[in-house]
Amino acid sequence: MPAANATDATGSADPDAELWDAFPAGAPRDLVRAGLEEFAARGFAATTTRDIARAAGLSPAGLYVHYPSKAALLGVLSRAGHEAAARVLDEALDADLPAVERLARTVGRFAAWHARHHRVARVVQYELGSLDPDGYAEVATLRRRMQGRLADEFAASVTAGDVDVPDVAGTARACLSLCIDVCRWYDPAGAQGPDDIADLYTELARRWLRPVA
Amino acid sequence: MPAANATDATGSADPDAELWDAFPAGAPRDLVRAGLEEFAARGFAATTTRDIARAAGLSPAGLYVHYPSKAALLGVLSRAGHEAAARVLDEALDADLPAVERLARTVGRFAAWHARHHRVARVVQYELGSLDPDGYAEVATLRRRMQGRLADEFAASVTAGDVDVPDVAGTARACLSLCIDVCRWYDPAGAQGPDDIADLYTELARRWLRPVA
Repeated sequence: MPAANATDATGSADPDAELWDAFPAGAPRDLVRAGLEEFAARGFAATTTRDIARAAGLSPAGLYVHYPSKAALLGVLSRAGHEAAARVLDEALDADLPAVERLARTVGRFAAWHARHHRVARVVQYELGSLDPDGYAEVATLRRRMQGRLADEFAASVTAGDVDVPDVAGTARACLSLCIDVCRWYDPAGAQGPDDIADLYTELARRWLRPVA
Repeated sequence: MPAANATDATGSADPDAELWDAFPAGAPRDLVRAGLEEFAARGFAATTTRDIARAAGLSPAGLYVHYPSKAALLGVLSRAGHEAAARVLDEALDADLPAVERLARTVGRFAAWHARHHRVARVVQYELGSLDPDGYAEVATLRRRMQGRLADEFAASVTAGDVDVPDVAGTARACLSLCIDVCRWYDPAGAQGPDDIADLYTELARRWLRPVA
């Protein structure tokens, strides 16, 4: 793998380029990018540290110079993915808009993030059970914070009399679930891109969040 | 593992008992149940045919007497899971109800199925890439049929002037996605059971499917 840049082997823009800024340029960053490629292609369990080192252009034991284990590498990738998703959620929830529109657009933007970063999101979501205890504890904290913030915003909007939803906590959870599952089925070769998904999911969320007249 | 029956090792009712009827009682059925346990616990890649044989109370090579490979065992489990989900979808869509209510209740029942059978559904959804080509082709046909039938029912209800939804195909896909993702987060120890999820998701789908006045 060449030094980290914004294009992949086919010359396309790397949709995850912004995630790699969190890692020192050179081998540490190349290893995380290689880890994503390998985990996405064959799953964490079937990937070896040699596979990742080779994909990063390092010697067979090269991963261990920078990360203590394959699970530790997954941990930093998973944390970076969760932090990026949390930033999108926070920014959208901080927008200065009426409650229904603010919450609905948050759902649209969060869904679009899971389309654009579907490969990272898949690894992050489906390999939670492969994290080591410290790595799991870190992302569990981030997940609780995201879930809690969305649920709190829904509850506050209902309490303020702005929005009517059935089962506030359940609807907030359904919004997150709807957005996260985009990473499972999203096909970048399909007719609909992340912006189309943002538009549709914003409208679907608007219908869940009835404005109180 | 004892011969197949309706209780697990803790004496609880096996929520997946109905799925096992598709398999001959004895070793063939025990192996599929053991395969579910092992795949759910550690993933397909990290499970060996010995693990499954041992869990089914057979000799180390016992799996091969009944199934040609670990992937073939996953294939029959995956097909049984898809067939059971398709039956629920078909029955709900055949109900004699007004369009909005029929479609909304279908979403609720399909979501509840993914809660009740969350372990089977997880293995089935997340191990699609581990199927052999024939196994994949079989479940891909079942998946296309389910997706197609739901999309056709949505489109027919819109054409008939009964229902207003944004982006008919996209909303049908979002309904399936919302239901399937229940298997990812559902916790049988949580406060909400499958029937609660059915109620909430039926109401959420009603809001997406506006009746045309």
